[in-house]
Amino acid sequence: QSNKVASIKVGRVRGFSIKAEAINPQIRKEEAKVVDSVVVTELSKPLTAYCRCWRSGTFPLCDGSHAKYNKETGDNVGPLLLKKQ
Amino acid sequence: QSNKVASIKVGRVRGFSIKAEAINPQIRKEEAKVVDSVVVTELSKPLTAYCRCWRSGTFPLCDGSHAKYNKETGDNVGPLLLKKQ
Ligand code: FES
Ligand code: FES
Repeated sequence: QSNKVASIKVGRVRGFSIKAEAINPQIRKEEAKVVDSVVVTELSKPLTAYCRCWRSGTFPLCDGSHAKYNKETGDNVGPLLLKKQ
Repeated sequence: QSNKVASIKVGRVRGFSIKAEAINPQIRKEEAKVVDSVVVTELSKPLTAYCRCWRSGTFPLCDGSHAKYNKETGDNVGPLLLKKQ
């Protein structure tokens, strides 16, 4: 995983080019599109949380980092929960 | 689903408060944290794609909207694929 933080241009104010973080600032930026696959019959636990905030240290799994991201930004993203039952 | 676009503050330039879109600009903004659950035994198709770009018109499913978002921003996000085999 790269340490470089990707940014996206969101606008221009009096000659300043304003850049914001992308949805995915850091994860596997060498890939054109980050796609992950889960074979659901191979899930070991009754409940597995998958990250949709792109801030997890264990991506594609959720490690709870969405809480810090939501608190800092006012956003409201959360994981996808895969349940065996 | 609300039509209001949420924004997050990303900085300040010479008195301008700069706001960027959140990871999730539009989906279920009335919820403090958007979490979805999938009971994997109930998946009907061999392959089901779940959105991680927060731009899908069929969220939590992927409808391919990540392609437009990636092209417009230079980001590299994509879906989580759930496979039965
Ligand atoms: S850490 Fe990303 S959704 Fe939980
Ligand atoms: S539409 Fe969001 S990941 Fe495909």
